[in-house]
Amino acid sequence: MATDAAAPAAAAPPVAADQDINPWSVQGGVDENGEVVAIDYEAISKKWSTSLIDEALLERFERVTGHKPHRWLRRGLFFSHRDFDRILTRYEHGDPFFLYTGRGPSTGSLHLGHTIPLQFTKWLQDVFDVPLVFMLTDDEKALFKDGLAFEDTLQYGMDNARDIIALGFDQKKTFIFSDLKYLSNHFLMNAWEFSRLVTFNQVRGAFGFDGSSNVGKVFFPSVQCVAGFATSYPEIWSDTPAEVRTKEIAKIDCLIPMGIDQDPYFRLLRDNSHRMRYPSPKPALIHSKFLTALQGAGGKMSSSNPNSAIFMTDTGKQIKNKINKHAFSGGRETLEEHRALGGNPDVDVSYIYLTYFEEDDAKLEEIYNAYKKGEMLTGELKKLAIEVLQKNVEEFQERRKAVTDEVLASYMKPRRLQWGGNPNPKPKPAPEPKKGKGEKADKGEKKLPERPKE
Amino acid sequence: MATDAAAPAAAAPPVAADQDINPWSVQGGVDENGEVVAIDYEAISKKWSTSLIDEALLERFERVTGHKPHRWLRRGLFFSHRDFDRILTRYEHGDPFFLYTGRGPSTGSLHLGHTIPLQFTKWLQDVFDVPLVFMLTDDEKALFKDGLAFEDTLQYGMDNARDIIALGFDQKKTFIFSDLKYLSNHFLMNAWEFSRLVTFNQVRGAFGFDGSSNVGKVFFPSVQCVAGFATSYPEIWSDTPAEVRTKEIAKIDCLIPMGIDQDPYFRLLRDNSHRMRYPSPKPALIHSKFLTALQGAGGKMSSSNPNSAIFMTDTGKQIKNKINKHAFSGGRETLEEHRALGGNPDVDVSYIYLTYFEEDDAKLEEIYNAYKKGEMLTGELKKLAIEVLQKNVEEFQERRKAVTDEVLASYMKPRRLQWGGNPNPKPKPAPEPKKGKGEKADKGEKKLPERPKE
Repeated sequence: MATDAAAPAAAAPPVAADQDINPWSVQGGVDENGEVVAIDYEAISKKWSTSLIDEALLERFERVTGHKPHRWLRRGLFFSHRDFDRILTRYEHGDPFFLYTGRGPSTGSLHLGHTIPLQFTKWLQDVFDVPLVFMLTDDEKALFKDGLAFEDTLQYGMDNARDIIALGFDQKKTFIFSDLKYLSNHFLMNAWEFSRLVTFNQVRGAFGFDGSSNVGKVFFPSVQCVAGFATSYPEIWSDTPAEVRTKEIAKIDCLIPMGIDQDPYFRLLRDNSHRMRYPSPKPALIHSKFLTALQGAGGKMSSSNPNSAIFMTDTGKQIKNKINKHAFSGGRETLEEHRALGGNPDVDVSYIYLTYFEEDDAKLEEIYNAYKKGEMLTGELKKLAIEVLQKNVEEFQERRKAVTDEVLASYMKPRRLQWGGNPNPKPKPAPEPKKGKGEKADKGEKKLPERPKE
Repeated sequence: MATDAAAPAAAAPPVAADQDINPWSVQGGVDENGEVVAIDYEAISKKWSTSLIDEALLERFERVTGHKPHRWLRRGLFFSHRDFDRILTRYEHGDPFFLYTGRGPSTGSLHLGHTIPLQFTKWLQDVFDVPLVFMLTDDEKALFKDGLAFEDTLQYGMDNARDIIALGFDQKKTFIFSDLKYLSNHFLMNAWEFSRLVTFNQVRGAFGFDGSSNVGKVFFPSVQCVAGFATSYPEIWSDTPAEVRTKEIAKIDCLIPMGIDQDPYFRLLRDNSHRMRYPSPKPALIHSKFLTALQGAGGKMSSSNPNSAIFMTDTGKQIKNKINKHAFSGGRETLEEHRALGGNPDVDVSYIYLTYFEEDDAKLEEIYNAYKKGEMLTGELKKLAIEVLQKNVEEFQERRKAVTDEVLASYMKPRRLQWGGNPNPKPKPAPEPKKGKGEKADKGEKKLPERPKE
């Protein structure tokens, strides 16, 4: 496991209570001097009652899957979850589940921060060998952002889908769709049914809506939520889609990787999934922090501020310039001071980016120590960050070129997806003779349909 | 024109101010004795600022279309409108418009009351020779009615569609669809775009929603509204549907025949149609009264009270029994009294039903007078009503038998519809040299696309 010191921007600046995290804006708090301070992720986790990902969970992950946890798990970039342990139990026993994640297309090009949950999702897909549904919420952005037409977001969505494919998802196990274009009436029926379970007061509480909020915003959470139900995609589980949603399909579990800001949506989903006509388990969630803006702690990369972000379309030269010009440095004012007193890697954006993209834990620790002692200079640290980012983005751009119209269409076609799952599932313990009230869900799992296989 | 006396239940009982008319319930007020009194339609019209249909409008209708107004127009069953005169002007000049109406399927079988706006719509289609879109709001009923699943309403919707077809709509000019199954992304985009224009406060005001209303109800009006935009149906206007909604298609006008209780939905539509990305004219509306319940004034036929309604599946014997047993009578207590003092046709349900279904104005007036003078007895009046209702329902049932699965599918297939319109349009006056601000819409109309023709 990595040292705690390598966790991005965790130990350093003071934390303010007034940070603002919600699905539409992310802003660290402000200290007594009016300075924006780092986002306090533990405080969010506590406020929203999520579980922090701890050493024990990561050890169990490695034991159950046989995979070393991703560096973003080891280094706390994915830091929080709800019921991720239940997913591990499912995997352990070979029970079916799928991955769901999404993106609201507000621009035609992703930045590096967007790709974090997506690259992580790809890794989860490789590890668990399960289907992924990827929803482009083409309506969301046009509902919440002035001046953006639905036609625009549809086009951005198509562009984004090419980027997503370039991240390497397995075509045989991945269905990408726009919620304006994937027109399964099962999906719509679920959205309407879910909307019947949720009151205006509840979405007001969860999202801060008020009487002047438009009714699209008020309804939209239903759409975002029901993408987490297996019954929304009859084509994925069977070659002959059932005409009706079924109890059995509803029991296929779901794991949703996401930025922590999206949690309010899925709390709503978890609070209501058992109330559907065909009840589903509460989807499990795994939450990431945000990729720190070039300007440093307290903000996240944002498309609306080009100098805050590395875009996946940036050239090597642009990346170099952005890091050299804009990446907040933890170095000292002068060379002499730096050599004498050492730099502060915990707030240094170049170092933080290395923690995201440098796989080698030992090398990272070396860099950390060298910078802290003043043996490594800011220019040298920036150079390392530039190299690793340039490599990441260039490789992405190479793969992006291969995403033809045909490739795009093949991912977006509603169709049966292939399943792998655990090749050596562990037999389940014999059921207890008497069941308590709270264990009903487990009881039902025994009736799961034959798992679709490749 | 018919005498005013023939207007159903208009002159008779006192009117209370506390009547309750909204899209989900219709109830006349209660008088000082606690008796439900007749619905005061003029009061609704005044409250909601609709225009009453007057003699001058009907004369213009006849002049422009060359058709005698339908008996339901002559007798005030369709009594109110918004901008129906503008539709006449459009027809006069051969400008394109379409009809839109709908039904929320809460049961598998229609009653006679349901068929009134539908039969009238069919007549409008014949007169104007224009396309009709017919929306089954399969989601609405499940959202608003407890214990009804979306699957149920889908099935009811299919059954209702067969009934609707049996009313005689022209297949080449009629598209029937379920809003859970017709999955045009233009329709959805319009619904989302419209939802952005309407706030929670507005739907609260229009429909009496509150914080405990479910978010489906809050959103649903957007779906009901955008079915009135030509841009929701690209297939109807062109063989090669545009990938995008267009300004030109948006200008195709719309006339919506409906029960007066649905007006709140379409006020919302009219208030916002010009705010869409591709602005549409305010759809024109024409409003009907309700078919009086068998029990008499103050209620309407209702599926949830079988004794209040004649169902389209009733046998001749059932119709006879219902009229004889349940139809409220305006006759006197005894034969002697009736002969001496005369009956009251204005509150007599059998007579009221005759005003709906007896085409011959002169015959109807004779019956009115004979009953009023006591020359005609209640039994004789009931017999006339039974005959005319039995004929109407039996003919319907004959046509219903012919609605095979293939016929049903042919109406529900999204496709280009045929247009007729005015065979001899009147040339438009030359445009004024200078345009005022308010006349922009007229200016645009010259750019209308070539009207699709058979």
